[in-house]
Amino acid sequence: MRISELSDATGVAVHTITYYLRVGLLPPGELTSRTRAEYGPDHVSRVRLIRALVQGAGVSIDGVRQIIDALENPPADKHELFGVAQEAVPAPDGSRAASAEVRAVLTELGWDEVLDNPFVGTLTAAVETARDAGLDLRPEHVVELARAVEGIARIDVGHALQAPSVEHALLLVAAGTVVTDPILAALRRLAQQHVSAEVAAGTGLSAEPRPPSESR
Amino acid sequence: MRISELSDATGVAVHTITYYLRVGLLPPGELTSRTRAEYGPDHVSRVRLIRALVQGAGVSIDGVRQIIDALENPPADKHELFGVAQEAVPAPDGSRAASAEVRAVLTELGWDEVLDNPFVGTLTAAVETARDAGLDLRPEHVVELARAVEGIARIDVGHALQAPSVEHALLLVAAGTVVTDPILAALRRLAQQHVSAEVAAGTGLSAEPRPPSESR
Repeated sequence: MRISELSDATGVAVHTITYYLRVGLLPPGELTSRTRAEYGPDHVSRVRLIRALVQGAGVSIDGVRQIIDALENPPADKHELFGVAQEAVPAPDGSRAASAEVRAVLTELGWDEVLDNPFVGTLTAAVETARDAGLDLRPEHVVELARAVEGIARIDVGHALQAPSVEHALLLVAAGTVVTDPILAALRRLAQQHVSAEVAAGTGLSAEPRPPSESR
Repeated sequence: MRISELSDATGVAVHTITYYLRVGLLPPGELTSRTRAEYGPDHVSRVRLIRALVQGAGVSIDGVRQIIDALENPPADKHELFGVAQEAVPAPDGSRAASAEVRAVLTELGWDEVLDNPFVGTLTAAVETARDAGLDLRPEHVVELARAVEGIARIDVGHALQAPSVEHALLLVAAGTVVTDPILAALRRLAQQHVSAEVAAGTGLSAEPRPPSESR
């Protein structure tokens, strides 16, 4: 297909596609004459991926480039996926030193292997931002949230390990985490309304999870 | 304190504070002379809240205004909090019609009371964006994520209902949800590394939660 058809197929303007080509996010089409190039289905998927990362998830062009580099050079072993993916998507504020408090939280969680992860700096900055906003955020609250988030991570890792190929698994981990963050944010607000309605109706659960002995 | 001291106390530039005053996000200081105004501790917290919402969580100036309006006119009953908070923070893509698929997912979850919530449109758009990015996202996957997110919402609602005042509870719900989204995103990546390391070491959990009969 021609570039105008690639634009129609993806809903991305021709000048934006030209920009993706120029900065190397998109491989060149096959030249069919001196002024005409032909694009295929791989170009369609690539343009959709870039658009979702940039517009849907707010990833910078540099971040997109790193995700695409990782997709083009996938690790041999699925267990290396998370390391590669975390290098692929730059952690905002990842160069920050972790606060003693955040280190203590991670140790209490038993997450000792993550202490060198750049997202520890991101977490430290995010905790300070929340407190600056006037939120009385105690370490126990962060621990509580982390335990709930572990359930999400277990779903993420499970899907990645079941993926048909390492390439697909990396797409799930590197791009998928970024692209599904907005899904989780929307679900969180809907779940708040649902849980709040349960509580107001008197059928709600306490803030604690149900004990294991209770029937489900 | 003078405006320069308010700037020092909050790390926000004087011209930015002037802008917040001009658009009415910040109440005027007390005039002590024709050209001089005096600011107090309430101004410090307000400027920190605005900065966290704008810089930390990417909320638009209109969104900040709606959160502040809600904080200044809190509901009488804590159970109305979530309704007020959801009106306060505009849902991105909230005007979109929900897809039949998303409606089916919410019905399967038993979240029937949320069907009119504007974040259903946000969720629909986020699911489509993820698919456009090449993610093979099945409805069962969304249901699985939603059940994990319910654990987070239960923590959110629990904290809001235990807050010392309705004002504080609303800060937790309206601003707190927005401000803690980046904390959850950072925790998700750290938890992925932790769970992945567990799986690689052969001590990992399956993608399913442990059965209730197992000791914790």
